[in-house]
Amino acid sequence: MSTSRRSSANTSSADIKTGTAGWLQKTITITAPSRGCHIITNDITRQIPELQRFSVGVAHIFIKHTSASLTINENADPDVRVDMEAALNHIVPEKWHREFFTHTMEGPDDMTGHVKSSLLGASVSVPITNGRFALGTWQGIYLCEHRDSGGWGGGHARSITVTIQGLVNS
Amino acid sequence: MSTSRRSSANTSSADIKTGTAGWLQKTITITAPSRGCHIITNDITRQIPELQRFSVGVAHIFIKHTSASLTINENADPDVRVDMEAALNHIVPEKWHREFFTHTMEGPDDMTGHVKSSLLGASVSVPITNGRFALGTWQGIYLCEHRDSGGWGGGHARSITVTIQGLVNS
Amino acid sequence: MSTSRRSSANTSSADIKTGTAGWLQKTITITAPSRGCHIITNDITRQIPELQRFSVGVAHIFIKHTSASLTINENADPDVRVDMEAALNHIVPEKWHREFFTHTMEGPDDMTGHVKSSLLGASVSVPITNGRFALGTWQGIYLCEHRDSGGWGGGHARSITVTIQGLVNS
Repeated sequence: MSTSRRSSANTSSADIKTGTAGWLQKTITITAPSRGCHIITNDITRQIPELQRFSVGVAHIFIKHTSASLTINENADPDVRVDMEAALNHIVPEKWHREFFTHTMEGPDDMTGHVKSSLLGASVSVPITNGRFALGTWQGIYLCEHRDSGGWGGGHARSITVTIQGLVNS
Repeated sequence: MSTSRRSSANTSSADIKTGTAGWLQKTITITAPSRGCHIITNDITRQIPELQRFSVGVAHIFIKHTSASLTINENADPDVRVDMEAALNHIVPEKWHREFFTHTMEGPDDMTGHVKSSLLGASVSVPITNGRFALGTWQGIYLCEHRDSGGWGGGHARSITVTIQGLVNS
Repeated sequence: MSTSRRSSANTSSADIKTGTAGWLQKTITITAPSRGCHIITNDITRQIPELQRFSVGVAHIFIKHTSASLTINENADPDVRVDMEAALNHIVPEKWHREFFTHTMEGPDDMTGHVKSSLLGASVSVPITNGRFALGTWQGIYLCEHRDSGGWGGGHARSITVTIQGLVNS
């Protein structure tokens, strides 16, 4: 149960909610079908039904790998995901593998994948409102797999730790 | 009211504070005057006076769009913001629109905007100390608008959801 | 002490933990030995032994500067860090300093450093499980210093604010 407080000072705190703090942490596995960017919003929510119990909070979604990334982008037109992968390959071209990279044992998709993972990031944090991700209408969560299928990414099964902190409904 | 605990083990926990957990979540609107990077630190704090009630915590600031970004950068010299926009246009050039992008219906500032939004990110998280953002001296929060004024960004009004979790003063 | 709840509805909340919410916030200083990327995971954990008291939570690690960054990447082969620095210098080349940047007073490593800091980000958030950072096997936290030793980065001493929110053991 949450309560709200009202202050008579010019610092309104009418909207601050208090109540039972809850934590949900799960490590889930998501397998990208191929190198590139894929929308995984529903793959995540399907595996954390407990999300519905949080009235307000933040979900921290963290990929435990260094050649795949999480980001938030357009959820409607699949062409955006194709173009995102193409753009990443232009920003971090594989020719660098033979031009100046020194970490080259695992192939041209490896060190480029590490760079892409730092550009996009290992985690996204999403606000929670009334038991749901409070994403914008056009936003989805992307898993961007930077390794080719034959690379060390294996079958592209990736471990993702979701940690939700928030106010739980009684 | 917060309390601190002291452990006699070599794991000091003198600095862990406990007390009333509070949540503040508000969706505010900020309109960028033009394409490019703009400092919005005060536009945010002005709309969340409740910030002052949190003695320690983290503010998660999340833009609900995919062709504008939030980032943290230099707050003093306006030239930095001009150069940031120029740099982004070199890293993700609009010529890609005619060279290889397939998501092209909304103009050359659209798919490039999606790429920039994943490079910079849809959210920033800022530590809170004694009711204020604990930014460094030279840090400000940037709203980077990637769409031209005539684009689907419309008048550049952007929805931003701020979620604060922290210890609230009694 | 945490408790778990079980719901008979199809919304399982067996895994939601509740208990004492705790906050730990410390600003630590880490000095990069040189421009480039350096693993600082242990430099952080050594300075926040209180981490061991959190059974679940998230650590927000925030650098209070705009020409150095935090990111997560490969922790095993030092060549990755060398290649990361080289890749950043190709993505944001210093020739831009004389070609089109206007914020040029502090040298070619300054504005390029600001751009890199927005590409990589000022903060990383790391899940906590049983008193430890729940990083992947191959993940480490990088401090990427973008200034030369003679630059305004001085001796590269950087302030980093760590804010942990989580469930503390009684």
